[in-house]
Amino acid sequence: MRTTNDIILLSHGGGGTKTSELLKEVILPALENPVLARLDDAACLDLPSAELAFTTDSYVVKPLFFPGGDIGRLAVCGTVNDLAMQGAVPRYLSLGLILEEGLRVADLRRVVESVAHAAREAGVHVATGDTKVVERSSGGGMLINTSGIGIRRPGVDTHVSNARPGDAVIVSGPIGDHGVAVMSAREGLNFQARLESDVAPLAGMIGRLLEAVPGVRCLRDPTRGGVAAALNDVARSASVCVRIREAAIPMRDAVRGACSLLGFDPLEVANEGKAIVICAAADESAALAALRSDPLGREAVTIGRVSDGPPGRVLLETALGGERVVDVPTGENLPRIC
Amino acid sequence: MRTTNDIILLSHGGGGTKTSELLKEVILPALENPVLARLDDAACLDLPSAELAFTTDSYVVKPLFFPGGDIGRLAVCGTVNDLAMQGAVPRYLSLGLILEEGLRVADLRRVVESVAHAAREAGVHVATGDTKVVERSSGGGMLINTSGIGIRRPGVDTHVSNARPGDAVIVSGPIGDHGVAVMSAREGLNFQARLESDVAPLAGMIGRLLEAVPGVRCLRDPTRGGVAAALNDVARSASVCVRIREAAIPMRDAVRGACSLLGFDPLEVANEGKAIVICAAADESAALAALRSDPLGREAVTIGRVSDGPPGRVLLETALGGERVVDVPTGENLPRIC
Repeated sequence: MRTTNDIILLSHGGGGTKTSELLKEVILPALENPVLARLDDAACLDLPSAELAFTTDSYVVKPLFFPGGDIGRLAVCGTVNDLAMQGAVPRYLSLGLILEEGLRVADLRRVVESVAHAAREAGVHVATGDTKVVERSSGGGMLINTSGIGIRRPGVDTHVSNARPGDAVIVSGPIGDHGVAVMSAREGLNFQARLESDVAPLAGMIGRLLEAVPGVRCLRDPTRGGVAAALNDVARSASVCVRIREAAIPMRDAVRGACSLLGFDPLEVANEGKAIVICAAADESAALAALRSDPLGREAVTIGRVSDGPPGRVLLETALGGERVVDVPTGENLPRIC
Repeated sequence: MRTTNDIILLSHGGGGTKTSELLKEVILPALENPVLARLDDAACLDLPSAELAFTTDSYVVKPLFFPGGDIGRLAVCGTVNDLAMQGAVPRYLSLGLILEEGLRVADLRRVVESVAHAAREAGVHVATGDTKVVERSSGGGMLINTSGIGIRRPGVDTHVSNARPGDAVIVSGPIGDHGVAVMSAREGLNFQARLESDVAPLAGMIGRLLEAVPGVRCLRDPTRGGVAAALNDVARSASVCVRIREAAIPMRDAVRGACSLLGFDPLEVANEGKAIVICAAADESAALAALRSDPLGREAVTIGRVSDGPPGRVLLETALGGERVVDVPTGENLPRIC
């Protein structure tokens, strides 16, 4: 039988004894580290004198658990990856949990353990946190916000506006895995080939890349809006044309099949463990070698070039030899994917 | 007639053109500052070499607008105050907006303008942000997470475990305003006397205090769980007894009346513009003078003492001369108050 202690109640968010119990019994044991242990309303950070990067993201993915990951792993990796794409070394995360009344405490425990596991994998500490509870709704049980602080590498500038004609456009591996895995789980679809999210912390891979090629021009993780949104950002910010070749874009057969079945353009599907890397043509082979030396970048490949074609445009050379414009996705097709 | 542009749609959270439109038309114009303007996935912070404080809080208050404030002002002040209570100077905030489908864009605009106004008042920049959209529910339209980074003042340690027998317990003004204002707005109650939230950024007032009395023992803002939760934290962390006098606790008549009508213990009601200050008896008058020199601390007053009575206990000397234990609130009575 289920007792009240097995599910989240509004009182768990009230800041009193029920909140303390939840913290002490479920949340802190998984996350324990010296910074969090003081349990102040703000954490004291031990950081070298350096320029810092600061980022925030809320995670609203539905369902909470999906093949290859869960909302906790996603909340760590998404924020760590935003820091990594800035050329920063991720160091500290905050963890804001917004729980729905009725959430199973066992599910919360599983998510918090996943946060802790992913944080260890990414080499970051959860330094500060907060837990709130809202009424039961159709919302899927839980939202997470993570903010992250990282240390910027001196001299590294990976802003999307740095792309120049002639640069190589590299993707660190097959695209579409995350979005397709989540949508399939949500729709209850069963494909013969198992679809798994690629959710992973990329700071290690990006570290190898920047050691080999400190002058990388742009880094961007193609999350919401996928490769299409990321490359359009590059094209617009840098006032260049980005040309990619359909035949060169790596994609698992299962993802290709699912996209075709579900009516998604794989270029618009979110990834959570991939990077778009743009670098000078002279750096291309060093960049590919560095990416491929990391387990998460094994399948890195060049998918196109920056050109001086129509500025602000992303063009796809199709498998049949035609050409089409890759637009910015409207954002209508894939709600609550990350 | 209402067009689709007047309300928030799921596609506004998809990371595509609708998200860009919302950012450019509604969110960024209000918040504009040099750090945010780069619109990277992570912001670059300009900070001196110093120890930093880092905090996070999610705000789930219902209704979004209440007498004296709104969720935007609350999200800035709550996080700024957590940093101030650590003895840190607040510098940067992140802003994570989680919008419900169907929210009126006009309401979002009003909240974002309120965020910007409160940030200016508190002397902080919104450095980075994120916007997600979830399905319509009973949720009240919008949740906000803010994380904050501040610069720690060297040598200042205001942890609740520092309280010592003999110390003075000061509150910076009348208690209960925020919680009672929100509950009254939610219940549609109309009191003759207008009840207004005290939500305000306290970093300026705390700055004056720490300049006058750098050796302040403890600072705590009595938010969720109110003065009762804050003082119990002190008593438990420092293994001391905290004795307060009911007759000394400042409270507006309207709050007293509303609490009695609604069945709330004013000691358990959240405040969003007050500080509990604990200092050595020798520093008491300097601390009171410094607090009263700030408009937000005009009504600061000593409400009790730390004693060597039963450790971990908070005791209230009642107006009639009796004594009762002030327990940690369970958190059941005042959901979604902040």
